[in-house]
Amino acid sequence: MSYFDNFLKTNQAYADLHGTAHLPMRPKTHVAIVTCMDARLHVAQALGLALGVAHILRNAGGRVTDDVIRSLVISQQQLGTKEVVVLHHTDCGAQTFTNAAFAEQLQQDLGIDVSGEDFLPFTDVVASVREDMALLRQSPLIPDEIIISGAVYDVDSGRMTEVK
Amino acid sequence: MSYFDNFLKTNQAYADLHGTAHLPMRPKTHVAIVTCMDARLHVAQALGLALGVAHILRNAGGRVTDDVIRSLVISQQQLGTKEVVVLHHTDCGAQTFTNAAFAEQLQQDLGIDVSGEDFLPFTDVVASVREDMALLRQSPLIPDEIIISGAVYDVDSGRMTEVK
Repeated sequence: MSYFDNFLKTNQAYADLHGTAHLPMRPKTHVAIVTCMDARLHVAQALGLALGVAHILRNAGGRVTDDVIRSLVISQQQLGTKEVVVLHHTDCGAQTFTNAAFAEQLQQDLGIDVSGEDFLPFTDVVASVREDMALLRQSPLIPDEIIISGAVYDVDSGRMTEVK
Repeated sequence: MSYFDNFLKTNQAYADLHGTAHLPMRPKTHVAIVTCMDARLHVAQALGLALGVAHILRNAGGRVTDDVIRSLVISQQQLGTKEVVVLHHTDCGAQTFTNAAFAEQLQQDLGIDVSGEDFLPFTDVVASVREDMALLRQSPLIPDEIIISGAVYDVDSGRMTEVK
């Protein structure tokens, strides 16, 4: 049994009401939001984003990786964004393991050796936001004039708090 | 001027209505959706996802990269997901450049040499979905029993079409 068919069915109803309209490819606010894949965070709703308003990048933890830098370079140099928001959240899956324990688990369950790989876990969510803001500021691919902000989202209350 | 303050303000109103409720960290459907950062795609609305229902991974193009694999391994081995949907879309920013032209532009605008880097552009959106589904199927880190589906989202009509 697959959930894909449910999503397809739901989407047909969504599309019936959507109508046809062409919005510009470039995000209206010139903002890209870097956040976590967590199922309890609906970014558009929580930040009040209309369609076409901001790029949304998501991975495990909302960490700034090479792939996030690749995506932000396209977002900025190709599609005109000028601001980045790093948004991590409480009760994150990235806080549930260490690299060593996870490597041992994968060796056991999948028979694969990933020792030495960094799955980017963290313990302190404010520190992880600051670390990733610093990575963006240090990257030669992110120009100095790009505005960088950070925040933590509380998945229980839905509230976002700035990290300076 | 930064849009971050607008998002913070909007979020306070959202949180006031959100109330406090703790949902489980593990996504209810056991699905992870891999899609693009594009501002014209609101994944939760378009697929009818309630809070807590599915992981959402997003980067430029919705491409399967090392970082997506890292995130999916955490999603599957740590948080119990068993299904992946690769969802690319029409009129994608990843269709607006070639690596060679982009490298030339970055050399000119940022004074940085990225020649040899792959920014993962594509021309045919159905082919890119198939390519990324194949990458997932070939990865030793993604177990064979994981269900993999693919689709294209039309940003003008809001309609999702399966790619086999």
